[in-house]
Amino acid sequence: MFRHRLQVRFSDCDLLGHVNHAVYLTYFEQARSAWWHALGGGTASMPGAGAIIVHASCNYRAPAFPADDLEIRIAVAALGTSSVTLDYAVVNATTGQHLADGRTVNVAYDYTANRTMPLPVVTRAALSAAPEPD
Amino acid sequence: MFRHRLQVRFSDCDLLGHVNHAVYLTYFEQARSAWWHALGGGTASMPGAGAIIVHASCNYRAPAFPADDLEIRIAVAALGTSSVTLDYAVVNATTGQHLADGRTVNVAYDYTANRTMPLPVVTRAALSAAPEPD
Amino acid sequence: MFRHRLQVRFSDCDLLGHVNHAVYLTYFEQARSAWWHALGGGTASMPGAGAIIVHASCNYRAPAFPADDLEIRIAVAALGTSSVTLDYAVVNATTGQHLADGRTVNVAYDYTANRTMPLPVVTRAALSAAPEPD
Amino acid sequence: MFRHRLQVRFSDCDLLGHVNHAVYLTYFEQARSAWWHALGGGTASMPGAGAIIVHASCNYRAPAFPADDLEIRIAVAALGTSSVTLDYAVVNATTGQHLADGRTVNVAYDYTANRTMPLPVVTRAALSAAPEPD
Repeated sequence: MFRHRLQVRFSDCDLLGHVNHAVYLTYFEQARSAWWHALGGGTASMPGAGAIIVHASCNYRAPAFPADDLEIRIAVAALGTSSVTLDYAVVNATTGQHLADGRTVNVAYDYTANRTMPLPVVTRAALSAAPEPD
Repeated sequence: MFRHRLQVRFSDCDLLGHVNHAVYLTYFEQARSAWWHALGGGTASMPGAGAIIVHASCNYRAPAFPADDLEIRIAVAALGTSSVTLDYAVVNATTGQHLADGRTVNVAYDYTANRTMPLPVVTRAALSAAPEPD
Repeated sequence: MFRHRLQVRFSDCDLLGHVNHAVYLTYFEQARSAWWHALGGGTASMPGAGAIIVHASCNYRAPAFPADDLEIRIAVAALGTSSVTLDYAVVNATTGQHLADGRTVNVAYDYTANRTMPLPVVTRAALSAAPEPD
Repeated sequence: MFRHRLQVRFSDCDLLGHVNHAVYLTYFEQARSAWWHALGGGTASMPGAGAIIVHASCNYRAPAFPADDLEIRIAVAALGTSSVTLDYAVVNATTGQHLADGRTVNVAYDYTANRTMPLPVVTRAALSAAPEPD
């Protein structure tokens, strides 16, 4: 399971005193981007397949506050012909408290032909080798 | 079905050239807030029950671009003892194209006792009278 | 003076209960974009000169709150060889209260040659005809 | 000079391919918050004086990109009766390139009396001991 650390920004929080719920998708995005680079994405050997997000969801269990250090965990939940389903967990890195979990479905997209496309072989191989959820 | 209009901000969009996927939850939130006020929420007769979001999800069908005028539609999908499930649709107000749909589960919360609470009677009555999804 | 209306989003506000100070630059940006389109920018007759922002500032006088309707006013303060200086005011559209004022300096930029460029003649003409600050 | 590290988020960037200019004020805010805690702010010995921002500005010199590691530097530029003026620099932590500099004016505020107030003695002492700009 890939782990990405980030710090809550003051401006991530809203009038209710904690991180605004929409920002969790941004945390997922940030972890996903780091994970993709760690897999070798965006390099000559695994040129960026265009990707679009067709689904995102999050379940909220406990709040996060300004300057909290969070760990975003990410794992491959399912691999389809042209899609990969990713599962996320958000954990307070100091206390270990589980704050949220979520999911995105990402689809390989051919921006030239303007349609979805099968996952490139090299991408599929990298995703298959990635850790599964705990 | 309650309808709320808003305009896409330049800064809602990311490197991919369209509205960032996390921002749709912000659009839902904006519509939900307008809807809650339209129902009479936050007034003396229906004092704000504290509410928390325990789930949010979105399915993305087509992109939105800077300065697009969007209509966010919102309807009550289910009413539990302490929760209300809301369904959303995002439509391009100019073309009528359906761009996204989503859901949130909102739970009445007693911030003093620090736990969920049954929906107040007056809130339940207002929500019961609200339109259902088309 | 060009005037642009927008509504404060709940998520524009931070823990302090009002619009976060950084968001005013986003309001300026949104007004500037609408103004540029109103001037004819981005059309065949005035193809988008690339532009970069080299300076932005804001003075804060009074807070704005969720769902406030704001009017952003924009005017040309100065016109240089390759730059235009814009002045902004943020006014509560309901009460008329003056909330903030600011400035940006925007420079025409040739993304191909990777350097600043003189304002195109047609752009200069349009900016010269734009209203000055009150 | 206090130094704070942060990573550019994908969603900090806009259609132009680099960090949106408004986000630099958020970077300043994040550094200011860390600096304030490092000074001992918000503790029993230096209880949070309420503070408001009355001015913010930024000069942009070079762009920042997704996943860039940035160092935000902050120093006390001037100390008034009730205000502190802070200067900021944004530097690419990998290349050392200077990307932006800025300024905020922060004023001590008595939220009970709803007016500005002199800087508390202990706060003034801490600020006086803080490093000046290079």
